[in-house]
Amino acid sequence: MDHGSPSQEHVSHLALDIGGSLTKLDYFSRNNECSNGDNNEEKSCSKESLLVSNGDKKCPVLQGRLHFAKFETSKINDCLEFIQRNQLHLGGCQHGGAPGNEKRIIKATGGGAYKNADLFKEKLGIFLDKEDEMDCLVAGANFLLKAVHEEAYTYIDGRKEFVQIDRDDLYPYLLVNIGSGVSMIKVDGDGKYERVSGTNVGGGTFWGLGRLLTKCESFDELLELSHRGNNRVIDMLVGDIYGGMDYTKFGLSSTTIASSFGKAISDNKEIEDYNAEDVARSLLRMISNNIGQISYLNALRFGLKRIFFGGFFIRGHAYTMDTISVGVNFWSKGEAKALFLRHEGFLGALGAFTSYEKHGFGDSIVRQLVQQSPLSASHAGYKIHGPLNGEWNDNESIECSVYVN
Amino acid sequence: MDHGSPSQEHVSHLALDIGGSLTKLDYFSRNNECSNGDNNEEKSCSKESLLVSNGDKKCPVLQGRLHFAKFETSKINDCLEFIQRNQLHLGGCQHGGAPGNEKRIIKATGGGAYKNADLFKEKLGIFLDKEDEMDCLVAGANFLLKAVHEEAYTYIDGRKEFVQIDRDDLYPYLLVNIGSGVSMIKVDGDGKYERVSGTNVGGGTFWGLGRLLTKCESFDELLELSHRGNNRVIDMLVGDIYGGMDYTKFGLSSTTIASSFGKAISDNKEIEDYNAEDVARSLLRMISNNIGQISYLNALRFGLKRIFFGGFFIRGHAYTMDTISVGVNFWSKGEAKALFLRHEGFLGALGAFTSYEKHGFGDSIVRQLVQQSPLSASHAGYKIHGPLNGEWNDNESIECSVYVN
Repeated sequence: MDHGSPSQEHVSHLALDIGGSLTKLDYFSRNNECSNGDNNEEKSCSKESLLVSNGDKKCPVLQGRLHFAKFETSKINDCLEFIQRNQLHLGGCQHGGAPGNEKRIIKATGGGAYKNADLFKEKLGIFLDKEDEMDCLVAGANFLLKAVHEEAYTYIDGRKEFVQIDRDDLYPYLLVNIGSGVSMIKVDGDGKYERVSGTNVGGGTFWGLGRLLTKCESFDELLELSHRGNNRVIDMLVGDIYGGMDYTKFGLSSTTIASSFGKAISDNKEIEDYNAEDVARSLLRMISNNIGQISYLNALRFGLKRIFFGGFFIRGHAYTMDTISVGVNFWSKGEAKALFLRHEGFLGALGAFTSYEKHGFGDSIVRQLVQQSPLSASHAGYKIHGPLNGEWNDNESIECSVYVN
Repeated sequence: MDHGSPSQEHVSHLALDIGGSLTKLDYFSRNNECSNGDNNEEKSCSKESLLVSNGDKKCPVLQGRLHFAKFETSKINDCLEFIQRNQLHLGGCQHGGAPGNEKRIIKATGGGAYKNADLFKEKLGIFLDKEDEMDCLVAGANFLLKAVHEEAYTYIDGRKEFVQIDRDDLYPYLLVNIGSGVSMIKVDGDGKYERVSGTNVGGGTFWGLGRLLTKCESFDELLELSHRGNNRVIDMLVGDIYGGMDYTKFGLSSTTIASSFGKAISDNKEIEDYNAEDVARSLLRMISNNIGQISYLNALRFGLKRIFFGGFFIRGHAYTMDTISVGVNFWSKGEAKALFLRHEGFLGALGAFTSYEKHGFGDSIVRQLVQQSPLSASHAGYKIHGPLNGEWNDNESIECSVYVN
């Protein structure tokens, strides 16, 4: 491991998740002290949890932070430059080959890990060690749900409420990862899962159709537009068909959407005649509701009561979560619950990060990430170091520890 | 009943289905002869089926034709003019009130029967007797499946294959009616059903979004466009993410759509830079596939092996049916089957038509429609009078008989 430069010295465990739309990465940067699990760290970390992950063996612990970043996959060179500039690829990754002729190996997942393997080798001289996408999503979700306090929350009627997850009563659950497309995975344990369904109407559809319809320039701008829009301008509601009446016999109120974008068939308007805000809103509602419905139907198949939604589509966006929650609640008649994850967008990248452990490579191996909260030392569990109820910031870091073998 | 004009004399049983996008109507026009069920008609109709519907009682039979027509609901005045011009509202409908002050009552269903009731009263002096939309869809489907030979067919790999429906082994089935929105109904018998699901991503979405994206002027034009398009231009495929590779572990081939419209996020193109054909194709595939998937998931819930698709969205369009069939087959691993109906668009209108019987009104009451095929007199069943393997023409008529009490 090269400790030549200050940045290299402190950075390790770069992991990548290269998706169809976005490339996510995470890496660990350590503080100065390096100490044993039974010393002062216990003041801010729970000893019990340190021991759980490590058995009775006392291992050195690196204190530090886990960092996250994202880039558009279509601008993958921005990601390469970011890695190069911060020398993220030089420290703490796997090595292979004869001394002096070592290969730098970085964990990577997502379809882009295959597509862009040559590019990373050529530009940065690193080899992407490809981890299966679903393996990583599941590993990332399991890690977050078990190790991070206040990771999962419900979002109902504009209210976010954190849910305590009992580690011993976590499985089975349905994981719905909304990236460009959507994967639905029944998770039964660590590494035990089945991809039971999915849909091609996902985040890429929202962004792709949204770009074409509104000419807006980024996913976030489109979300922002939708926040201010009114879907009733373009959607055909039950009341539009029934002359303002409910269709009570089947529990369909006059404001239920009968047909997304259905008003556009008879309005005699061009796309330019609609407000971009209203178009974005209808689109978001159509896609969120559809994902909520298909998720619920799959949860029903397997009797799963909890559905965790991850992926960058959500981005802590209130209206998206509200629509998904309402959809799951409506279709399940209150039986199933939609839950969201604070680190929703980084499941795959976290899974790739934790996979350094799996293969037993290298000199510095992640055994367990432990999150500490200097803000709340009295709390028995772990906390995210950051605003507890605020929105998640992509580039925010998590204070954590890494065990070293 | 006014027999003053030739057209009035021969026309009766006008029924309407006024949906969010389209208004469908059907009516009966009789030939000259009026005879008993035990006479010469038996040569071309099965006696057994005549007696099934009618018990042992011999009833007069009106020979004639059942006619269909459709109009855009946004141009409902075209429909009113058509009725007026052909005097469809004057013959054989229900009457009520004191003599000389009779109300002309027409059976109507769909949300527009509520919304447009005043318009029909004002312009044509007729009262719409509103029948429940789902009741009519189910009645129409049951009627077609039981009375019409070669009504249902599969469509796989471009091949249409008629399916023999055993009247005694018809239930339960899932009826998916794709209008502006989509209703999914579990049918257990005559009038015995439950609306179990639906989706707001339906025909109105295809047409509405399609109009905005392609500027085409009609639903049929949009379908025609889609016929010539290539969805791979705009859809993000598994291979686009995985560098041309399959994601074999989960049975996703490189040509599987990962994200509908997903390529539009990075193409740096405006909507004008895409061919309208390709846009229409992606849209059709997105919506058809989604309906196929949600239908299958609902069929699975109730262990239903047969899913009948109706509604004007389909319009005998090869690619639509192919996508739905492939979707149902893919998701069910071959367990469930998608079936289509020749008279797909007129389920509600047929249900309203047959509802004249239900209430025992009037002097000329439909007891059973019987379809005959002069083209195939040797066949034991009933046949549509028209091209057997051709596409259904909206304004084509069916040769049939109507019982008179």
